[in-house]
Amino acid sequence: MYVNRIFAEKIGEELESRILPHHPENLYAPIDYMLNLSGKRIRPLLVLLGADLFGIKNIDDALPASVAIEYFHNFSLIHDDIMDKAPLRRGKQTIHQKWNDNVAILSGDALLIKAYEQLSRCPARFVPDLLRIFNRVALEVCEGQQLDMDFETSDTIGQEEYINMIRLKTSVLLGGALEMGAVLAGASAENRLQLYDFGVNLGIAFQLQDDILDAFGDPVTFGKQVGGDIIANKKTILYILLGEAIRREDEAYFAELLSLGEVDARQKIAGIITLYEKYAIQQKADTLKQHYTALAYKSLEAINIDHQRKTELYELANQLMKRVR
Amino acid sequence: MYVNRIFAEKIGEELESRILPHHPENLYAPIDYMLNLSGKRIRPLLVLLGADLFGIKNIDDALPASVAIEYFHNFSLIHDDIMDKAPLRRGKQTIHQKWNDNVAILSGDALLIKAYEQLSRCPARFVPDLLRIFNRVALEVCEGQQLDMDFETSDTIGQEEYINMIRLKTSVLLGGALEMGAVLAGASAENRLQLYDFGVNLGIAFQLQDDILDAFGDPVTFGKQVGGDIIANKKTILYILLGEAIRREDEAYFAELLSLGEVDARQKIAGIITLYEKYAIQQKADTLKQHYTALAYKSLEAINIDHQRKTELYELANQLMKRVR
Repeated sequence: MYVNRIFAEKIGEELESRILPHHPENLYAPIDYMLNLSGKRIRPLLVLLGADLFGIKNIDDALPASVAIEYFHNFSLIHDDIMDKAPLRRGKQTIHQKWNDNVAILSGDALLIKAYEQLSRCPARFVPDLLRIFNRVALEVCEGQQLDMDFETSDTIGQEEYINMIRLKTSVLLGGALEMGAVLAGASAENRLQLYDFGVNLGIAFQLQDDILDAFGDPVTFGKQVGGDIIANKKTILYILLGEAIRREDEAYFAELLSLGEVDARQKIAGIITLYEKYAIQQKADTLKQHYTALAYKSLEAINIDHQRKTELYELANQLMKRVR
Repeated sequence: MYVNRIFAEKIGEELESRILPHHPENLYAPIDYMLNLSGKRIRPLLVLLGADLFGIKNIDDALPASVAIEYFHNFSLIHDDIMDKAPLRRGKQTIHQKWNDNVAILSGDALLIKAYEQLSRCPARFVPDLLRIFNRVALEVCEGQQLDMDFETSDTIGQEEYINMIRLKTSVLLGGALEMGAVLAGASAENRLQLYDFGVNLGIAFQLQDDILDAFGDPVTFGKQVGGDIIANKKTILYILLGEAIRREDEAYFAELLSLGEVDARQKIAGIITLYEKYAIQQKADTLKQHYTALAYKSLEAINIDHQRKTELYELANQLMKRVR
């Protein structure tokens, strides 16, 4: 994973310097636990990269906004994990599992509020703009999560609906993080929008790639169990494209495979992959992924600033999109 | 209930003019449902009264902040109802009951974000200050809710801890609503603080009165079932004062009464009230209530502004504190 070392260190220090109250323990200990599970912290990095792109004078001015984005991301994970009944997060027990649902609801709420507390620490003249962007993105993330849950019980999701869902659930936050950085550096409205689009489209491409790798990735380099989505009947882009392409003759077989459980995991994965191959689903998904990757690069190119300054974002995009099969 | 008609109408119109998106339905329909259960809307009124006290030029400038406060209040009710497993709210099914827990978690989150969206509509020069106040109060409300849940499983709560809990859970929001109004009218820091203290202390007094009325109110005028708290073993100020005052000879009897359920409701209420009378608990609680009422009036008096302007807040306080027994 690409990392700007100096920025990553600044973010780490900033996150660690934010000391939480100790009381009430059941409110703050779970937040502390979650923040210490320490993910890749790519979202707060995007805030700094967005600010740096437009030559912010003092990069430290962008730290509160970057922490706000990281807090928001963790809040959304805490609540999503309750809703998805997920037992693990980053290999550790989720909060609702380690404590209980009530603790996870309330400490999630408090973390969302703490995200806004960070926004209020930003340079005052930018606060109204930052608040508007943050609110818009935060609400869209909620909409995406709701659509994702709605999709679980629906059999008629098309690729457009699916891409709209991942755009809302995961990609607008990447775009919003970059946009907030741009605001803090005083970028023009036009440039802000291009940078936002870059983040959103890159996010969509990345999520599509993640779906593809689940079925077609190399188990050694992918880092997750290959076929995990297949076993769980997860509605990935592959699943949806197959549902759209499948001919009547294969429908019963597809349904039969979907009804298989953990016990028949190998058979299930092999069967579904055969269908994916028969209908050239990987190629179709790759075409989509390339479409959104191209859109992302196009937006990055369109930003009206010295090409040299864009090097880091190009590198980041390249590294994200060439994850080893 | 005291109401400034013009302000109440403005708030009603403002709330109704905020049209929610229709999609995703499971995200927005519950919010719409909750906002239409329409409580007393005293919190948004406090924002306008706070702004009016200090002579805000255009009262409409305070409407977004008042809606923000009402949204926040409803968000906290939605999540509290999940945590308390409450089936009813204002006589209607709660959201987690009518839909499910996931819908209630996520629509609550969205409503909290929509509260911040309203803050971002406030006059830009006040946004940073309003955001700080709102965040501080919102976080305290979460702390209060956590303490309330912690208290359920603790037998060693003293009156100070209890009052601190109700201060956080319910009173700081009243103070914060008034304070935000004052900020919007450009009041001095000193005056803002006095007005905030007025709201907080009035809120504490009101909550203590509510506890007292549950046991000693007139069933005809109280509007709720008298003794409801007693049946539920709710840790009210009466319960806590009795726990502090009770002598060893009555402890077993108290414990026995606490173990009685719905079936023996009349016996339970009568028994507990006998103990309250034996230990003069009502008087002790009244003394506390009067202490906080006096603090509230003292803060209102201390506000450095023409006495005439305070008439509405005095009236509001009088009406809140002389609810019929």
